Amino acid sequence: MTSEFDEDTAVPEDGAITLTGRWDGSGGVVNGGYQMAVCAKALARVMPHPDPLVISGFFLRSGSPGPATVRTEVLRAGGSLSFGAATLAQDGEDTVRATAAFSRPGKQNGLLFHGTAMPALPPPDDCVIVYPEPGDESPIDQRIDVRAPELPGWLRGQPSGTPAAEFWLRFADGSDADIFALPLLVDAAPMVVRELDGHGMTVELTVHLRARPAPGWLACRSLTRHVAGGYHEEDFEIWDSAGTLVAQSRQLCLFWR
Amino acid sequence: MTSEFDEDTAVPEDGAITLTGRWDGSGGVVNGGYQMAVCAKALARVMPHPDPLVISGFFLRSGSPGPATVRTEVLRAGGSLSFGAATLAQDGEDTVRATAAFSRPGKQNGLLFHGTAMPALPPPDDCVIVYPEPGDESPIDQRIDVRAPELPGWLRGQPSGTPAAEFWLRFADGSDADIFALPLLVDAAPMVVRELDGHGMTVELTVHLRARPAPGWLACRSLTRHVAGGYHEEDFEIWDSAGTLVAQSRQLCLFWR
Repeated sequence: MTSEFDEDTAVPEDGAITLTGRWDGSGGVVNGGYQMAVCAKALARVMPHPDPLVISGFFLRSGSPGPATVRTEVLRAGGSLSFGAATLAQDGEDTVRATAAFSRPGKQNGLLFHGTAMPALPPPDDCVIVYPEPGDESPIDQRIDVRAPELPGWLRGQPSGTPAAEFWLRFADGSDADIFALPLLVDAAPMVVRELDGHGMTVELTVHLRARPAPGWLACRSLTRHVAGGYHEEDFEIWDSAGTLVAQSRQLCLFWR
Repeated sequence: MTSEFDEDTAVPEDGAITLTGRWDGSGGVVNGGYQMAVCAKALARVMPHPDPLVISGFFLRSGSPGPATVRTEVLRAGGSLSFGAATLAQDGEDTVRATAAFSRPGKQNGLLFHGTAMPALPPPDDCVIVYPEPGDESPIDQRIDVRAPELPGWLRGQPSGTPAAEFWLRFADGSDADIFALPLLVDAAPMVVRELDGHGMTVELTVHLRARPAPGWLACRSLTRHVAGGYHEEDFEIWDSAGTLVAQSRQLCLFWR
């Protein structure tokens, strides 16, 4: 069975795709991470290396469900690294400009140093289900299964004042995330500035793809350190079921409350 | 008097510049942050907004001192944000691809939340001079003045095993950093993986420019959290003399020792 993610990110050779509404946030706006995943998959068609290593996307305009095109450009085909750019457009206007480096699949060797550990969470079955909720209005919340030791404060009507969260994550259809799903997943959960009663809109998102994820639940950590001058950053880490850090991301967002 | 930084990053209308060797690291390779600053200044000529807000650069090839050209492209001229791309090329080959969002100068209003504080350092005059050192072989180390409570372990031949550092930084010629200098300065100090006896080469660097820096010394924090699979990331924060977070960066690097 093809997963919802694979269905919605399949890019044909001519780059003409349809962005589905299945990954929309509550405002009917297509999720930025979903569009980044589409760009990464389009680039994979033309890059000499198989795996995205780092991808940065700038969100020029909001995307909406419907027809779109992806144009790709190989910037450099090198021996161990290759570089490319992908531009997503709708109705003749560019909506996302992504740039990426691709490489061979990551190796789990060499010196390992971890200044932060994998989030220490109870097993998913001992956690509460944060999403999907019955009656939830946001399509993306129906596509991801999020489990945490307790409901976040803002969902209980009591924002904690601490913009941070740790939780389990997987696709709600039970499919396992591959490396191309990681740019979507780092952007799939609500922003942790909700704990400051805040909201945000992403200007730029950079994702480091540190390894291909093993099957199973993904342990996530989301954190905002600085809200100032109308902007905030959000950092996101994803660790796979084998305990490997597979994605590390940062986004810069417009902030409001 | 024109500062060394302003001299070396002045981009004429036709985009033809000369990359100087004054910002080279020890291997005779032009510093990546310096090239990002050149791209930001080239974009400033064509963008409708004055200040870079976020810039991401991919390093396709090593740069070397000598003639170069910068091509710019306005991706979107919006009301509150504009987007552009800059490509640096030498000898007919692209070396850096940068993408940026520009905006109006940052406002220091709205909710402020800081999960990490400005580094708590003794006054610069009570610190030791890390750079410049007499006899230092690396040009960039002669261009920046770095003060810290004590010399870093790796410079004393005793790598600490903790890839982190906090220090004061300013240009050695006494000039104050403007917002365009920040992409250079986040990349100007040696990588903190030296404390693991490690070295690195930048694949991608993203810099958030959170505000224009006030004159004076800049307080910096550099930190690597994850070395794995032959790569590491490095985070860098710069706080100005007024206590404002002015830059926050992350780079992904090839790691070796």
